[in-house]
Amino acid sequence: MATLPNCETLTLQPEGIALMITLNRPDQRNAMSLHMVQELSAVFDAIRDDDTVRAVVLRGAGGHFCAGGDIKDMASARSASTKDGSDPFRDLNRAFGTLIQQVNETPQVTIMLLEGAVMGGGFGLACVSDLAIADKSARFGMPETTLGVIPAQIAPFVVERIGLTQARRLALLGLRINGEEAHQLGLVHELVDGENNARAVITETLRQIQKCAPVATATTKSLLHRVGREPMDQLLDQAATDFASAVRGPEGAEGTRAFMEKRDPSWAADGD
Amino acid sequence: MATLPNCETLTLQPEGIALMITLNRPDQRNAMSLHMVQELSAVFDAIRDDDTVRAVVLRGAGGHFCAGGDIKDMASARSASTKDGSDPFRDLNRAFGTLIQQVNETPQVTIMLLEGAVMGGGFGLACVSDLAIADKSARFGMPETTLGVIPAQIAPFVVERIGLTQARRLALLGLRINGEEAHQLGLVHELVDGENNARAVITETLRQIQKCAPVATATTKSLLHRVGREPMDQLLDQAATDFASAVRGPEGAEGTRAFMEKRDPSWAADGD
Amino acid sequence: MATLPNCETLTLQPEGIALMITLNRPDQRNAMSLHMVQELSAVFDAIRDDDTVRAVVLRGAGGHFCAGGDIKDMASARSASTKDGSDPFRDLNRAFGTLIQQVNETPQVTIMLLEGAVMGGGFGLACVSDLAIADKSARFGMPETTLGVIPAQIAPFVVERIGLTQARRLALLGLRINGEEAHQLGLVHELVDGENNARAVITETLRQIQKCAPVATATTKSLLHRVGREPMDQLLDQAATDFASAVRGPEGAEGTRAFMEKRDPSWAADGD
Repeated sequence: MATLPNCETLTLQPEGIALMITLNRPDQRNAMSLHMVQELSAVFDAIRDDDTVRAVVLRGAGGHFCAGGDIKDMASARSASTKDGSDPFRDLNRAFGTLIQQVNETPQVTIMLLEGAVMGGGFGLACVSDLAIADKSARFGMPETTLGVIPAQIAPFVVERIGLTQARRLALLGLRINGEEAHQLGLVHELVDGENNARAVITETLRQIQKCAPVATATTKSLLHRVGREPMDQLLDQAATDFASAVRGPEGAEGTRAFMEKRDPSWAADGD
Repeated sequence: MATLPNCETLTLQPEGIALMITLNRPDQRNAMSLHMVQELSAVFDAIRDDDTVRAVVLRGAGGHFCAGGDIKDMASARSASTKDGSDPFRDLNRAFGTLIQQVNETPQVTIMLLEGAVMGGGFGLACVSDLAIADKSARFGMPETTLGVIPAQIAPFVVERIGLTQARRLALLGLRINGEEAHQLGLVHELVDGENNARAVITETLRQIQKCAPVATATTKSLLHRVGREPMDQLLDQAATDFASAVRGPEGAEGTRAFMEKRDPSWAADGD
Repeated sequence: MATLPNCETLTLQPEGIALMITLNRPDQRNAMSLHMVQELSAVFDAIRDDDTVRAVVLRGAGGHFCAGGDIKDMASARSASTKDGSDPFRDLNRAFGTLIQQVNETPQVTIMLLEGAVMGGGFGLACVSDLAIADKSARFGMPETTLGVIPAQIAPFVVERIGLTQARRLALLGLRINGEEAHQLGLVHELVDGENNARAVITETLRQIQKCAPVATATTKSLLHRVGREPMDQLLDQAATDFASAVRGPEGAEGTRAFMEKRDPSWAADGD
C-alpha cells in the first residue's frame, strides 16, 4: 500500500481491500477544520494511484460524522488581512469544495457511515459517497442560512445528489432531517441501527466490491461522472474504446480465464 | 412592502413575511388566461427586489389550483391575423413558459397549495414551487396530446421536476395522477387532507422560512438553479465569493452576534 | 404499416396501434448478438416515419428479457484482425450503444416487459423504455466488472435513468436487484406478477396511448429528450413554435372539433 501521511485530525487503518478513515476530533463533533481538509486531501492524493486500495470507509469518531465547518478557522479568517486580492473567507470556503470534488471522483469506492451530526460540510461530504449508510441517530441539515451565510460549497452537491426538487425544499427551509427521511429522499442508500448492524453492512459491501475488478471499477466510476457533462455520443465513443482496452488488458484476460475455468478471478480471492 | 399592482384575476394578501396570491377565476377553475399570466408576472416583478417579502403562497380559489390554459384566449388567437412574422398561438404559448421561468427563479421561497385540478399550465406552475403541498383532492395531468396539441411549455418543467424517466410515462401516456402518486414521484413534497391541515403546514413552513436570513436564502436559491447549467468549478468559485460577501455583510454579522449572544437573529424575531 | 424486415432473431407481430417485438433466442436467454442488434435497428428504422405504428412492445421469449452480450460475438472479435485502426471489440460495443440511443428516441411510445434476466445490455435497453413493466421474476444487474470489463454502453443510460446517486451504488458494487427494488429506485414504472397481469397492464397502456394524438405524442417525446441538452430559453422558443404548428395542423383541428362535438377524436376511435 502507498505510504500514508501522518495525520493529527484523522485515524487511518488499512483493512483488507479498504482504508478506514476516521475523522478524529470528537470534542468538536469532527467539525471540518482547514487542517482536517488538508489531511483528508493528502490521504486521497496518496492512494489515488494505488489500486490495492479499492475502497475507503469514512466515518467520524464519537458518534458523529461531521458537524460542519470549524468556528476557530472562521475566527482566524475574520482577523486575517485581505491582501493581494485574496480573501481568507473565500479561500477557506473554496478549499472545502475542492475536497468534496476530490472525494467525489476518487477511483476508490467510497462508503460513508453517517451517524449523529451530518451538518453543513458533513452533509456535503455525505453527498459524494458511493454507498451512504445512515444510522438511526443521523441528523442532516444545512443550517448556514439561519446564521446569515450560505451553504456555498455544499448545496450544489445536494442538488447533484437528490435533484433540485428535493434540494430546494431542504436548503430554502433550513430543514433538519433524520436518516429515514434521508433514505426516502434517496440521499442515503442504507439505514442501520447501531454499530453491529453498520459493521455487518460495511463487511458485506466490501465483499461485493472485492468481486469487482479494481481497474474496471475505477474506469466505470470515471465514466459515471462524465454523464451529463459531455455529449452522449462522445461519451459512448470513449467508453467503447475503454471497453476494448479492458477486454485486452490483464483484468479482461483473467476474468475470461476464470469464467472458463469456473473459478473466482484473482481479485476476488480471499487474502487478495 | 413594494406597491402591488391592481389585479382582476388575482387576490393579493400580505401576511407576515409572505404574500398570499390566489388565482381568482373560480368559474373557469382558474384557467390561466393571458390576462392572468400578465398580472402574475407583474406581481412577481413588483416584489422581486423587496426582501421584506420572503415567501409567496400561491393557490387557487374555489377548490382548484389551475385547470390549464384558457379556451377563450385560444379562440382569440385563432381569429387573430398572423402578420410581421408573429404568430398569436406561439406568443400566447411562450408567454406562459416565460411566467413559469420567472416564478421558478423568483428570490422568494414559493409555497404552492395544490387542490382539485392541477392540469396543463397548472401542472407546469406546480413544478417550479419550492414547497409543493398536494391536497387529497388534487389531480395532475397533461391532457394536451388528447386534444391533438403538445404540452410545450409544461413538459420541460415536468422533466426538470421529476426526471425524464417518470416524465416520459406521464407525458406520453397522457395520464392523470392523484396527490399520493404525485408524492411518490417526488412531484410534491407534502400531502394534506383539507383546509385545516393545509393551513397548519403552510404556517409551520413560514415559521421555518422566518428562521433563515432573507438575502442568504435568495442567494442560495439562485445558486441551486445554476447547478448543471455551468461547470461545477466555476459555480463553486462564485459560490465561495458569495460566501465571503455573506459573512462580511449585515446578515453574516447579525447571525454571528446572535449566535454568540444566544438569541434569535433579527430576521427570526416575531413581528419582524 | 411500413414493410418490416425479415428477422431471424426477432418475432414481429403487429397488434392494433402497436408492433410487438420479441427477442427470440431463448436458448441463449436472448443474449444480444450483433445480428440481433442489426435486426432490431432495422425494425426501428422501418417504423420510424410510420405514424400508424404508435407503440412498440418489447419483450423476450422464454421467460427472460435479455441476458446481456453474446459470448460468441466476443470470441469472434477476439480472433478478428485489427486493421485500418478499427477495433472489433470497440465496434461491437459501440454498435450496441447506438441501438440504445435509437430506441431511446424512437417516435413510438415504447413499452418493455422485463422478466427473468435483465442483465448487462438487457439492463441498458430497459433504461430507455417509456413504460417499463417488471415481472416479479426479473433480475437486473451489470456483471461486467466481475468479469474484468466495464458496462461501457450501459452505465451511462443507467445514470440517465435513475440518477448518479443510485447508479454509482449499483454499478460499483456489481449488485443484482429484483423487480421490487428496481421499482423503488424508479428504474421501472410498474410491477406485475405473471403473464396475465402483464398482459392486462400492456392492454390498458395501449388504450391510454390510443387516446393521445400520434404526431403530438411523437413531438412531445422529442421535446422531453431535449431538456438538459440545450438552454431552456431556446427549448421553450422551439416548443412554442411546435405548439402553434400542432394547433394549426390536422390533429389540432380534429382535436378541437371532437372536443366541441363531445366525441372521441379520430385517433382514439376503436378500429383506428
